[in-house]
Amino acid sequence: MSARRTPGLPAIALDRGSATPLYRQIYEGYRAAIIERRLRPGQRMPSTRGLADELGLSRIPVLNAFEQLIAEGYLQARAGAGTYVSSALPPQRSDGGPAPSGLSGRAGRGRGRRVSRVSVRLPASQPWLRGTGAFAIGQAAISDFPYATWTRLLSRHAHRLTAGLLRYGSPFGHLPFREAVADYLRTTRAMHCEAEQIMVVSGSQQALAICARALLDPGDQIWTENPGYHGGRAALQLAGARVVPVPVDAEGLDVAAGISRAPEARAALVTPSHQYPLGVSMSASRRLQLLQWASSRGAWIIEDDYDSEHRYESLPLGALQGLDRDRRVLHVGTFSKVLFPALRLGYIVVPPDLIETFAKVRAAMDICPPAFLQAALTDFLREGHFALHIRRMRRRYRERRAALADGLRGALGEGFRIVGDQAGMHLVVELPKGLRDREIAKAAAEVELWAMPLSWCYAGRALKQGLVLGYGGNTAPEIRAGVRRLEEVIRSIRGGRTRP
Amino acid sequence: MSARRTPGLPAIALDRGSATPLYRQIYEGYRAAIIERRLRPGQRMPSTRGLADELGLSRIPVLNAFEQLIAEGYLQARAGAGTYVSSALPPQRSDGGPAPSGLSGRAGRGRGRRVSRVSVRLPASQPWLRGTGAFAIGQAAISDFPYATWTRLLSRHAHRLTAGLLRYGSPFGHLPFREAVADYLRTTRAMHCEAEQIMVVSGSQQALAICARALLDPGDQIWTENPGYHGGRAALQLAGARVVPVPVDAEGLDVAAGISRAPEARAALVTPSHQYPLGVSMSASRRLQLLQWASSRGAWIIEDDYDSEHRYESLPLGALQGLDRDRRVLHVGTFSKVLFPALRLGYIVVPPDLIETFAKVRAAMDICPPAFLQAALTDFLREGHFALHIRRMRRRYRERRAALADGLRGALGEGFRIVGDQAGMHLVVELPKGLRDREIAKAAAEVELWAMPLSWCYAGRALKQGLVLGYGGNTAPEIRAGVRRLEEVIRSIRGGRTRP
Repeated sequence: MSARRTPGLPAIALDRGSATPLYRQIYEGYRAAIIERRLRPGQRMPSTRGLADELGLSRIPVLNAFEQLIAEGYLQARAGAGTYVSSALPPQRSDGGPAPSGLSGRAGRGRGRRVSRVSVRLPASQPWLRGTGAFAIGQAAISDFPYATWTRLLSRHAHRLTAGLLRYGSPFGHLPFREAVADYLRTTRAMHCEAEQIMVVSGSQQALAICARALLDPGDQIWTENPGYHGGRAALQLAGARVVPVPVDAEGLDVAAGISRAPEARAALVTPSHQYPLGVSMSASRRLQLLQWASSRGAWIIEDDYDSEHRYESLPLGALQGLDRDRRVLHVGTFSKVLFPALRLGYIVVPPDLIETFAKVRAAMDICPPAFLQAALTDFLREGHFALHIRRMRRRYRERRAALADGLRGALGEGFRIVGDQAGMHLVVELPKGLRDREIAKAAAEVELWAMPLSWCYAGRALKQGLVLGYGGNTAPEIRAGVRRLEEVIRSIRGGRTRP
Repeated sequence: MSARRTPGLPAIALDRGSATPLYRQIYEGYRAAIIERRLRPGQRMPSTRGLADELGLSRIPVLNAFEQLIAEGYLQARAGAGTYVSSALPPQRSDGGPAPSGLSGRAGRGRGRRVSRVSVRLPASQPWLRGTGAFAIGQAAISDFPYATWTRLLSRHAHRLTAGLLRYGSPFGHLPFREAVADYLRTTRAMHCEAEQIMVVSGSQQALAICARALLDPGDQIWTENPGYHGGRAALQLAGARVVPVPVDAEGLDVAAGISRAPEARAALVTPSHQYPLGVSMSASRRLQLLQWASSRGAWIIEDDYDSEHRYESLPLGALQGLDRDRRVLHVGTFSKVLFPALRLGYIVVPPDLIETFAKVRAAMDICPPAFLQAALTDFLREGHFALHIRRMRRRYRERRAALADGLRGALGEGFRIVGDQAGMHLVVELPKGLRDREIAKAAAEVELWAMPLSWCYAGRALKQGLVLGYGGNTAPEIRAGVRRLEEVIRSIRGGRTRP
């Protein structure tokens, strides 16, 4: 690096070894000098030839740099009279502000850096959501994923790229994929839907964000399950909706309690197949009550069906959407839990008269979903790999669930109670009196155990203390080892308590 | 299909040829009968053996169906006393509501189907945004895309799938990709950024939606260019922001006008490299004024850099972000315009102190971006294919721009004026007095010409009438043919006017 000073001009630093081209270095050097007033408005620049000589360069990078500085308005070329620093530039603050390079400076820590209130209120990342070891929630058994099949399908479509797959698509997604999803939902979930109603999204979270913006205005009330899914509440908060927590019992969301708290709510967000996090499924009676309330009040129901595919004691439950005779249900599903999360493909089943509204909201948020992976997943569904994978995973998760439930029963003493283990990829251990779930979760995270505190899933005061433990992403030996470590964590917390 | 009536039970329809399994047909048939009160609460069901005989089936599907109906709460098994219709089900409306199958019914057209006001106010799809022929906006030259190279990279990564690429990732995206993007922006756009600041998104639209939620609350003012990008306004509307239209002249957004209209605005949304739709680039003087206003007022600047890569008369302009010494600029870029739209990959360069806020907002809207395509695109950038493609496309678009501009000059008479053709993939033809751009655009769409009316880009009253014509996605012969048809459209409109 050498600093060259040209008579009457400030020095600029040139580095011939740098990846940044010389013209760019000259351009940036003089631009900085102009902005910082080391070169004054109206000051005459030397000729490019003279400057090139002075800098010991060929004339070309100097010409390019000047052309750029003229194009951007830092310099002005006056016909036949040379090149001048532009006289129209506003004066800059004398302190120049913080230096713009590096991440370490104090830039931006100061005054006047207010972000939106809605983003400040969003939940911060929590220690128990960080890792992928035992007992992280929502993790699929990645090691059992049929890599070879998926590789083959990706390669197949990589060799079949067409212009149609490269252009902007429908805000609802790739039609063959939507047809495959509609077929799957009709056959396995007893749903009433056509491909036209399937909007492809990046997963449940985007689905909830789109539903929230399409259905709710700031201040509108929506029932949410309590305890319930933190991500769902965040999506509703972003839309400015007022969340009305409604208690959940053994039959799912208590519809009568919802009606007494907020009869005029515009919508309800529920997880009928497998309540998050308690794991109960909503009873037929509650389902019908909920549909009836929605019909009579003109309200919407968002059915988050995030992991209904894995049920261990009975066949998969029919979706609430299939019972709905008034098209009040927005059904949300995802492939993240069944296949793998980084796929980022899910769907909303939209009532026919809401298709245009959802298309507008989607276009304003995200234009359309990427086509390539939809094409590969269409074949995965159509060729039977998906159904086979679900069956294999159901057996796998049943083993892992047994490892976790048996391990917990053996390790933990009186007062602990396992609930919600009939389906899905997580269960809940309710804690005996005196134990605080957040305290355990934080201590567990320090030994790389990701136990989510049940109390964190409550809006407001928690009625129960417990740990939500995932078993999808870990092998049975990992789970057993995790249970032993968890037992130690709990024992040391109890031990700490009994000491004087 | 046969309808079987069991003594004392309503008929259910069974179809042995159907793809729907028999147990599912039995389940759905009795579920419907229970919901519709053809089976009454408390009514006793026959034994599964008797029912199987009656239906002429093996007992297994009947057992499975009953198990499912019991699991979902439609039936209750009383130990030693048989199976009964659940007595806890609420009565249903007697009209039963509209039938739930098919898209053709009037379901949902009625009362109580209110969607959000914000979604109602979003712009409806317009005829000129429909097609991909001449002169659609924002379309890349798909036929020149290096398919073979991209196929090779996709295949390579299809054969290298790792668990890390399948799991949930950072809400900011795949780190190697973020590093490649940061290198690219530093080298070619004179930006100051590190990989930690790059948030990968699905494109400019999602970037704007995330910026809007992170920075603005409902009612907050934001300057927008007038005329400007309709999609940007839609993203701001979704967040409830109050859009303040600020006029654009030959130097870009008029900062002084912005200050006089809304000095306390929280942010400004600008397209400094290539104003959308007028095509001017923001002068150095205006850039510095804008940065100074933002610094002094504690406001944010969203720099939408949607198609800066293709500049024909000079080198690509430095980004506004690179001038910003106070970290006020959120820089938004996309690969949709340079490569192909269905890729759905773009980025936001986030000031370091805003990283946590953006991560929270992103997680609430969309968790994280898909990993596979980021991995393939990383190699595309690192191995030089991207730089090569940009150079090739610049030549290609220069040809197409010449075909369009020359064709228009030859075809259109006095009073037409071409502006904004120094960069990008579209230009603007201002119309002579008396011609209405929407009238031309609608007539053009009927002959499959997609000419966007300039007046549509204005918030409120349009100052100018013109046509925004894209040339990226069409060959020179297609463009010349399109110009001839456009001339006929305009001539027939003028002819229609002069007739009595």
